[in-house]
Amino acid sequence: MFFYKFEPKFLIELVKFNAKFIPNNMSKGLTKKEDNYSQWYNEIVMKADLAENSAVRGCMVIKPYGYSIWEKMQSVLDTMFKETGHVNAYFPIFIPKSFFSKEASHVEGFAKECAVVTHYRLKNDESGEVVVDETAKLEEELIVRPTSETIIWNTYKNWIKSYRDLPLLINQWANVVRWEMRTRLFLRTTEFLWQEGHTAHATKEEALVETKQMIEVYAKFAEEYLGMPVHIGTKTEKERFAGAEETYCIEGLMQDGKALQAGTSHFLAQNFAKAFDVKFLNKDNKEEYVWATSWGVSTRLMGALIMAHSDNKGLVLPPKLAPIQVVIVPIYKSEEEFDMISERVEVLMKELRSQNISVKYDNRDSQRPGFKFAEWELKGVPIRLAIGPKDYANNTWEVARRDNLEKKIIEDDNILKHIKELLVEIQDNIYQKAVNFRSENTYKTDNWEEFKHILETKPGFIEAHWDGTSETEESIKNETKATIRLIPVNPILEDGKCIYSGKPSKFRVLFAKSY
Amino acid sequence: MFFYKFEPKFLIELVKFNAKFIPNNMSKGLTKKEDNYSQWYNEIVMKADLAENSAVRGCMVIKPYGYSIWEKMQSVLDTMFKETGHVNAYFPIFIPKSFFSKEASHVEGFAKECAVVTHYRLKNDESGEVVVDETAKLEEELIVRPTSETIIWNTYKNWIKSYRDLPLLINQWANVVRWEMRTRLFLRTTEFLWQEGHTAHATKEEALVETKQMIEVYAKFAEEYLGMPVHIGTKTEKERFAGAEETYCIEGLMQDGKALQAGTSHFLAQNFAKAFDVKFLNKDNKEEYVWATSWGVSTRLMGALIMAHSDNKGLVLPPKLAPIQVVIVPIYKSEEEFDMISERVEVLMKELRSQNISVKYDNRDSQRPGFKFAEWELKGVPIRLAIGPKDYANNTWEVARRDNLEKKIIEDDNILKHIKELLVEIQDNIYQKAVNFRSENTYKTDNWEEFKHILETKPGFIEAHWDGTSETEESIKNETKATIRLIPVNPILEDGKCIYSGKPSKFRVLFAKSY
Repeated sequence: MFFYKFEPKFLIELVKFNAKFIPNNMSKGLTKKEDNYSQWYNEIVMKADLAENSAVRGCMVIKPYGYSIWEKMQSVLDTMFKETGHVNAYFPIFIPKSFFSKEASHVEGFAKECAVVTHYRLKNDESGEVVVDETAKLEEELIVRPTSETIIWNTYKNWIKSYRDLPLLINQWANVVRWEMRTRLFLRTTEFLWQEGHTAHATKEEALVETKQMIEVYAKFAEEYLGMPVHIGTKTEKERFAGAEETYCIEGLMQDGKALQAGTSHFLAQNFAKAFDVKFLNKDNKEEYVWATSWGVSTRLMGALIMAHSDNKGLVLPPKLAPIQVVIVPIYKSEEEFDMISERVEVLMKELRSQNISVKYDNRDSQRPGFKFAEWELKGVPIRLAIGPKDYANNTWEVARRDNLEKKIIEDDNILKHIKELLVEIQDNIYQKAVNFRSENTYKTDNWEEFKHILETKPGFIEAHWDGTSETEESIKNETKATIRLIPVNPILEDGKCIYSGKPSKFRVLFAKSY
Repeated sequence: MFFYKFEPKFLIELVKFNAKFIPNNMSKGLTKKEDNYSQWYNEIVMKADLAENSAVRGCMVIKPYGYSIWEKMQSVLDTMFKETGHVNAYFPIFIPKSFFSKEASHVEGFAKECAVVTHYRLKNDESGEVVVDETAKLEEELIVRPTSETIIWNTYKNWIKSYRDLPLLINQWANVVRWEMRTRLFLRTTEFLWQEGHTAHATKEEALVETKQMIEVYAKFAEEYLGMPVHIGTKTEKERFAGAEETYCIEGLMQDGKALQAGTSHFLAQNFAKAFDVKFLNKDNKEEYVWATSWGVSTRLMGALIMAHSDNKGLVLPPKLAPIQVVIVPIYKSEEEFDMISERVEVLMKELRSQNISVKYDNRDSQRPGFKFAEWELKGVPIRLAIGPKDYANNTWEVARRDNLEKKIIEDDNILKHIKELLVEIQDNIYQKAVNFRSENTYKTDNWEEFKHILETKPGFIEAHWDGTSETEESIKNETKATIRLIPVNPILEDGKCIYSGKPSKFRVLFAKSY
């Protein structure tokens, strides 16, 4: 009887084709990359409407345009995880304090930077002010997860009894909190979004294969989607994940010559199984500890994406991750011209959408074409089409590429084909440009003075010999701010001497300053 | 030089077609719904591998099978939100304590049940134990968001300047925390997953249209996907969201005769705009406060899904939300028989997948068919196929429906068509069953004794007159535990007398006991 349908004067009519991203600021006055790289980065993040600082220290607001890029990343990665046999689940955001103490190096690595929940109620005091209710104090404090190994392995204990329960291949999409003192949007924030895979295996070998598989998945994603070439390798003991026996990483090179760690995959051996007493009966009916891996990428990838490709006009998005791949700007003087042009635009939009190409028609009459051009350049849309009365009469479109800013006039008959090919070409070009940049900024030296000189004058990757000790690693870091980004997995063997200590070394490792 | 590809002996080969959900427990001994409804519910949640309690009081672990249903819900809802012009964004998990005080009724409603972060570091004390570092005390405490109106409206302040910036149609998928004293998996947990829409509008009328549109979206989702009929209406002042001027809700009826609020959409008027001083310049260049709505559904929908349809054999999933729509169980004695059957199964699986029907081949040799049948019934898979040597020889399949447990023999030539039609039929049947159950359990009375008698003996919805006062509402609740679930939006007008006070009333409202 009560079931009632509202009249269909829904907002959808009002807003469906107007789903707006937050009003942006213009690129006017975008700081030049070469003048102040760090400010250039911040301005792109803010002005392209990707994210902003929030009222909570170190926490960011990811704005709709930025979030739509993150959604694209999530969607691709999630598919890749599922194709490699993983399923998603969700574990609590809170971790009892005592759990951290169970794995010694883990607590060492994470306890320093935790948000701690101590109470569970507020109240009004006598003056009416809202204060913490001291009677509502938790017996054991809860930590907002900085990573979930402990709570997850405490759960796995009940899930794993026999080899038949293995492997357990689980991923979680979640927010995590690490109390950072110096934060930068996307690169280092107190709260960030990420995925964390946590897998359990019957054998060491299988866990190792999984660890390597996932770093390969990340590398594939970085290269084929982000358009960012990455090196794969392992971390030194000092740089390893707290609780891991081996950490694999991918490292990309940013345009200021600093390296950025874009993803890690950890071989945790039996450390967490031992800490949480997770054993299984093997095929011979004997009890063994379970082998573990964990791996993650985060919204830090947004920072990598921005810094790998953007220029002084703003963001440059690889077509595969661009929420809007094609933007169309009409150029007109009269309403009649606008209607005429819009009609042709609608036809093309329909065709593009039928090919799964995302397109936006910027038909705002409140802004002039020049303003719109600059705005979509700032936001990194790969292809911009413009059409005015002359183009209309000639059956042509003006096509502008965001990656190299080239413009071309294309016949209407060829436009669909041209756009499809151009999206592929831009994706390739962005990647190739980054590969070239990396080649040009990778050095090889056996001389300590030269090593220092490179880092001071033209930073990038340096391939150099290292004696394998943490002491040397530390000294190099103290003197140059450069760290060992990774140890190659399959190094080219050669006899050499450590760049710092002069002690013998069998292969080179990769140094760089880093984010 | 370092770029290195691992050998392709990836785990994928091992596990791709074996992506397992967590090993489950059998339905043997599933408590009967009529014996102990609440225990029956808990057992389904646990034994169908949907969720379990975690080590953190009141927080749940959503297991892979349960999470995959939630993912399906998310995907459908997200599409519906985007089709109605909304975009996603992300706001911080922490809210400064002072923000809560800014909207008076909001703090009243939420301050009682908040997780409060007071410190940002742990340390080792003299005995080596991990303790809170008292020197790392926050100047202002942070609240783990129970809902995000305050932090979001504080952000909107900077985003909204002119009528051109409106409407702002933003949604967030997130985790929230409300410190619940009595928790139940999915229905009431300290942490839960949800989406929260937060929109900003230039006019009251537009905000009201949005509020109603979103409750309609929820109703559509509940009926067409969950297969659960819902009533739409508004809440009484007492049951309204803290800070709202009007709360629209959808209410479903569970099999124990209790109502469950499955989604709400709030008209917030200018309350949060005033609290956070969010004004815009209208077309006449005059400053006005912005109008707001917020709306949300949560993992509570999982509880609704379970309680609306399940039976004494376990979960019953509507095909549109079932992660596995068809399961195939082979029946064989020899390896030869198994290979023969598997070959035909592979052909059908390929056909089903090409039609976007999700199918799982349960080829475990560690379990007998009877065990598998019970397991997939417990997990609510809509269609089960069985095939043995006889079926193979006859070119037939045994098809069992989960909803009514009927079995049929279907020719191989017709199987694909049959499955496609059956999925639609099951979806309809589940919904129709729930509609009938609701009709049978909806009463109308004008007599207080009968009202009480109904609630004691055969709970369900009761349509009755109410005098419109909070006092009467409260008294009825105290005497019967029933609350006003909703006030119809477009009520049938009739002269009547309040069921409790006897005062005049113009229309009936909907009473029920509820979750």
